[in-house]
Amino acid sequence: MSTTTAPTRLLSPDELEAALRAIGAERYHNLHPFHRALHDGKLHKAQVQAWALNRYYYQARIPAKDATLLARLPTTELRREWRRRVEDHDGTSPETGGIARWLKLTDGLGLDRAYVESLEGLLPTTRFAVDAYVHFVGERPILEAIASSLTELFSPTIISERVSGMLRNYNFITEETLAYFKPRLTQAPQDSAFALAYVKEHARTPEQQQAVLAALRFKCDVLWSMLDALDYSYVLPGRIPPGAFRPDTTA
Amino acid sequence: MSTTTAPTRLLSPDELEAALRAIGAERYHNLHPFHRALHDGKLHKAQVQAWALNRYYYQARIPAKDATLLARLPTTELRREWRRRVEDHDGTSPETGGIARWLKLTDGLGLDRAYVESLEGLLPTTRFAVDAYVHFVGERPILEAIASSLTELFSPTIISERVSGMLRNYNFITEETLAYFKPRLTQAPQDSAFALAYVKEHARTPEQQQAVLAALRFKCDVLWSMLDALDYSYVLPGRIPPGAFRPDTTA
Repeated sequence: MSTTTAPTRLLSPDELEAALRAIGAERYHNLHPFHRALHDGKLHKAQVQAWALNRYYYQARIPAKDATLLARLPTTELRREWRRRVEDHDGTSPETGGIARWLKLTDGLGLDRAYVESLEGLLPTTRFAVDAYVHFVGERPILEAIASSLTELFSPTIISERVSGMLRNYNFITEETLAYFKPRLTQAPQDSAFALAYVKEHARTPEQQQAVLAALRFKCDVLWSMLDALDYSYVLPGRIPPGAFRPDTTA
Repeated sequence: MSTTTAPTRLLSPDELEAALRAIGAERYHNLHPFHRALHDGKLHKAQVQAWALNRYYYQARIPAKDATLLARLPTTELRREWRRRVEDHDGTSPETGGIARWLKLTDGLGLDRAYVESLEGLLPTTRFAVDAYVHFVGERPILEAIASSLTELFSPTIISERVSGMLRNYNFITEETLAYFKPRLTQAPQDSAFALAYVKEHARTPEQQQAVLAALRFKCDVLWSMLDALDYSYVLPGRIPPGAFRPDTTA
């Protein structure tokens, strides 16, 4: 079934869930050639560095994305749920939270922390894709903003593949440098269970359901665009745009 | 000289202009391999279609970009100048203006007009890059918003190369399908002369000058990102993302 020509009749909540999962099966970035190369040990260290450096910007903007939505949520109950996401990423003290754990990965890969945090070497396409996500959550109806988080339905699979594949295939990767991912294996299902229940309950017209499906496609596009740019710039054909990270030739 | 490590002393207006032109010489998208292939006749018709289809979104959002800035400009004089840009792109009656002329190009390439206007086949990276430009102009200081238009300093060169190269190299391209470009040869210099004079007069601190230079680098990044995505998706390695335009195999 092509997801872009989905029928506009009202779906049952379970049909809506099935349509959301079908989008993941077609468009989630675990299917991207760059991710497969990353997990299968096909990349050089410099290419893994480029991935971690660019993905850092995504991690760093997630609390801004969630705070943007937090500011728009109408009830204490919803805000408590969404505030937990900001806490997961920003932590409760220095060196805790998802962003700090991501920096352990870039540290472990030998990238200078100040350089990573400066965003100087970012691919412009990474910036545009991530910023598109933050803007989406600020501008679209709350139902669509929540639906755009539903890529987390699919992330436990990719995280398991990534951790086992990267540990097996790269001698420069250790359990400690992959510390980011372990808590996500419990956080992501908790987050996505809430968001899935929310959209199944609140998407009550065919138009709302189609908007929910479009929001998830949009989010898949964000993640896919980031990998297209990494692949183009650092793998095939390997054309790094002006100003972006150029791997140290000694790496 | 690396433009990212430019000195932070105050530049004279002419030094600022030279620094702006140096950014164009390093980063304007006439240097991108996709554009060189386009102008040199190295692309198949389907690849030229993909370019025209994606670039349509840029053209279609330019009036929104300019209207966003128009709404923020403080004086009648500035608004008159900027309103002319909206008129150039939207025209004064049906089938006039830059967007209508761009659709003559997509028509001439055999693309269905309703499909082009639907934006369905757009590369997500095109959307994110163009939207980043519209957001930039809405969110940044007016000085930077105006500076981001300065890629027009460099466009007459690329347009001349493009028109002569495409007419010479592609039997499916005619003067009529390239009608978009001819008026731009006079509009762009008029626009960029105003914007250049404005930033030379109003960037009065080293910080403002650096922000002006960064705004132009940002805009070059927008155009470059669009070509990276076209090259990746339709040329090398030719991986079209889910949902994007797939050329008719008979084209």
